[in-house]
Amino acid sequence: MKRIAIDMDEVMADTAIDHLELFNREYGEHVTLEELEGTTLAGIRPLLRNEIESYFASGQFFRGLKVIPGSQDVIRELQEHYEVFIATAAMEVPASFRAKYEWLKEHFAFIPDSHLVFCGNKSIIHADYLLDDSVKQLNRFKGTGILYSAAHNKFETGFIRVNNWHEVRELLLGEGAGVRL
Amino acid sequence: MKRIAIDMDEVMADTAIDHLELFNREYGEHVTLEELEGTTLAGIRPLLRNEIESYFASGQFFRGLKVIPGSQDVIRELQEHYEVFIATAAMEVPASFRAKYEWLKEHFAFIPDSHLVFCGNKSIIHADYLLDDSVKQLNRFKGTGILYSAAHNKFETGFIRVNNWHEVRELLLGEGAGVRL
Repeated sequence: MKRIAIDMDEVMADTAIDHLELFNREYGEHVTLEELEGTTLAGIRPLLRNEIESYFASGQFFRGLKVIPGSQDVIRELQEHYEVFIATAAMEVPASFRAKYEWLKEHFAFIPDSHLVFCGNKSIIHADYLLDDSVKQLNRFKGTGILYSAAHNKFETGFIRVNNWHEVRELLLGEGAGVRL
Repeated sequence: MKRIAIDMDEVMADTAIDHLELFNREYGEHVTLEELEGTTLAGIRPLLRNEIESYFASGQFFRGLKVIPGSQDVIRELQEHYEVFIATAAMEVPASFRAKYEWLKEHFAFIPDSHLVFCGNKSIIHADYLLDDSVKQLNRFKGTGILYSAAHNKFETGFIRVNNWHEVRELLLGEGAGVRL
């Protein structure tokens, strides 16, 4: 059975939307997701970089995130054909450990603890595929990277790209899945 | 540069001694480490299994553990010749995340966050070597396993064995390190 590792933020959990909403509310701004294409919130508001990053610091930010549509159903289906691990770069925000774990238990209780990984550099992940929105992590990974679309990676061209969980399903479970990967 | 992943409990942190001391104090017993050879505390006191395992439940148990002698110096030296990751099965005790992280920051601050991994099943670890006291984890690992001696694994014979950090140093940094592994 092939193994797939799946990133959490911006792949299973909608960090981008919640982060943007928090920022807009607090600063009375109206930044849209479209404006973040190819960049980040800190990239377009560099003077507020510290404030922008401070949303993550408490870790509680991660507890209330919305589930990205389709991720639950497709991951459940993937488990029938792949060994599924969740690999999240939680070490970037150590305060997030508990919130991330609780979020996974709430929304993805069908993934056993043994298959959850909190790491930093994902070159440590031993899997056939890594589904991730981070080009930095996909470049480090030793297997086949699959890029999950996010505003910040819109102009990246070096990886197989999926735009939503419907496309993940097609790529990994559809006809000819073995050929396309 | 070859990569080595290093387990935490009973390799860097002396869980066995502290656990036994807690148990002996609470139950007025005098179980010795020698009695645990080839077994576990729950193995020799099966009726107290729940109580024995409850020491881990709070997670705080992991914050005050003693550092296993030699581990700091040898890991620091290993970093000059290997890419060193710490891989701990923290998912077995989710309440331990914070305590384990703080313990590592206190005693092994020279290991960057990017190289810490909290996982469950260590088959997910992509490294050349895994230094671990758990035969179960070494069997799952895809690279070369190195067994760190602990009372419970005393009679295992399937792996290269090291009895202390001096022997880790000899094996990985001594003359002919490349030949013996």
